Amino acid sequence: MKQKDYYMPEMSKTQIRRFLNKGTFTGKLATVKKDGSSHVVPIWFVLDYRNNEDDLGNMYFTTFIGSVKAENIQRDNRISMCIDDQTPPFSFVTIHGTAKLYPYKQKEVLKWATRIAERYIGKKDSKAYGERNSGEGAVLVRIKPTKIIAEKDITAWE
Amino acid sequence: MKQKDYYMPEMSKTQIRRFLNKGTFTGKLATVKKDGSSHVVPIWFVLDYRNNEDDLGNMYFTTFIGSVKAENIQRDNRISMCIDDQTPPFSFVTIHGTAKLYPYKQKEVLKWATRIAERYIGKKDSKAYGERNSGEGAVLVRIKPTKIIAEKDITAWE
Repeated sequence: MKQKDYYMPEMSKTQIRRFLNKGTFTGKLATVKKDGSSHVVPIWFVLDYRNNEDDLGNMYFTTFIGSVKAENIQRDNRISMCIDDQTPPFSFVTIHGTAKLYPYKQKEVLKWATRIAERYIGKKDSKAYGERNSGEGAVLVRIKPTKIIAEKDITAWE
Repeated sequence: MKQKDYYMPEMSKTQIRRFLNKGTFTGKLATVKKDGSSHVVPIWFVLDYRNNEDDLGNMYFTTFIGSVKAENIQRDNRISMCIDDQTPPFSFVTIHGTAKLYPYKQKEVLKWATRIAERYIGKKDSKAYGERNSGEGAVLVRIKPTKIIAEKDITAWE
């Protein structure tokens, strides 16, 4: 996909934030399994609340204790996540960072699960979804980015 | 994203094949870096030619020797790849498999790079793109699936 000769502008932090917040873009979360091979799944996530658009902040998603991704993170907290616009002219952001599980704060899980549901399935069903995803075994996960790669309009070369 | 109570039908092999071939869906290829952390990037890929729709076959993409993904695959050929429809009702396929590099067959690289370009940028520019992506250092990569997870219409629960 990548090739040196392309006109491939990077994104500013503000553009990255807007890109990550765009519609129902999912994150493809990659972790490492016990056997040392990779694991990648789509997740629903939201960004931290921030007033300053120039500060990317953290990302949040919920899962359940015992899921492959939760177990992988508990073993090694380093993650990477790819978000892309898979229609021409193609853009993507890849985040490298660390993930932290917050399994014991059900109220917080509910708050974030509801907010996440609002983004992906809309306000109407978000309460029911939030409750379902903050029950027993539910866990909030925070991603703290350490490195970001962002490339936009990959095929819009000049 | 996943939760047991959902109505979450799996896909047949034919459906998986059609899903992977759909429009300009990109693959999010996950590999493992030298330091043991994950790496994930979008790739353009095509499926093997097959007459039998019930046989998924292999996937092909091109990259360059020295790219992070090529180096990771040379170190450990186990990969995972996620392809998803990130609009409601949300569907995804995750492939676990092995990847093999074919660096010395420039004619083959050109053939596949051109075919890949046809899928993602259209017939018109595919020749130029194919040539650009099959020059020095270009490498064809074949993915052989060993395990497939497919879930469709995730939020269309009953």
